[in-house]
Amino acid sequence: MVAIAYDDLTPGRVFDLGTVRIDRDEMVEFARRFDPQPFHLDEEAGKRSVLGGLCASGWYTSSLWMRAYVDHVLADSTSQGSPGGNELTWSAPVFPDDELRFGMTVNSARLSKSKPGLGLVEITGTADRDEERVMRFTFLGMFGTRA
Amino acid sequence: MVAIAYDDLTPGRVFDLGTVRIDRDEMVEFARRFDPQPFHLDEEAGKRSVLGGLCASGWYTSSLWMRAYVDHVLADSTSQGSPGGNELTWSAPVFPDDELRFGMTVNSARLSKSKPGLGLVEITGTADRDEERVMRFTFLGMFGTRA
Repeated sequence: MVAIAYDDLTPGRVFDLGTVRIDRDEMVEFARRFDPQPFHLDEEAGKRSVLGGLCASGWYTSSLWMRAYVDHVLADSTSQGSPGGNELTWSAPVFPDDELRFGMTVNSARLSKSKPGLGLVEITGTADRDEERVMRFTFLGMFGTRA
Repeated sequence: MVAIAYDDLTPGRVFDLGTVRIDRDEMVEFARRFDPQPFHLDEEAGKRSVLGGLCASGWYTSSLWMRAYVDHVLADSTSQGSPGGNELTWSAPVFPDDELRFGMTVNSARLSKSKPGLGLVEITGTADRDEERVMRFTFLGMFGTRA
């Protein structure tokens, strides 16, 4: 029996998705391939920018959150993927060696009208550095029911 | 003089951000690190899923779009980063060897009230496979003015 099905994702339920420390080398490697803006590649360019220093591509932070979501929730679940979200906020720059705490909260859940056995769950994923929120992603997840 | 400043991002303006072909090896490598769900790693698991085959993590598709946006627009611009977006839709699965066409449209633009010389531009980025939209991302970009 899987750990997480639609039935377990009740509104208000909160999940701790653990912590990660931002690895400078991987952060820059990601930016070099997918988001080669100067402030994501070079310390001096970062200092000259409004971001204040060499910082992570928002897509890197989001991808790290996704990995934590897979490890802590999706890996043992009835997940059927996601059609996307309606909010993706990068509210503060993320720097090398930052420790981020990942989490998620279930906002709402409803059964699909067209697909029996499938439920749609609205989830807000978060990344925090100490008390400061650095990322928030609100999206729909599709999960099979236990029945 | 940079090619793209706030002043150039007029509502309705459309940018072609080129095409990419989805490389299976890189697609799977990305998933192994950031989104290791079975349908992103393995052909048979993909066939058994509602997605219909081995397919890309949505974050990979979004990251490829970002790279095209940097190459075609941001690299020679007054960009000051982005605080995020209010829509990120993965409307169809993306498969190895798919050719995606990337684009973007400027929705609206306004000058910042608090920061002189800075403008906020709402942009919708798109990825299409032939006539089918596979991704859409609507976000705010911050750009310096020419003045």
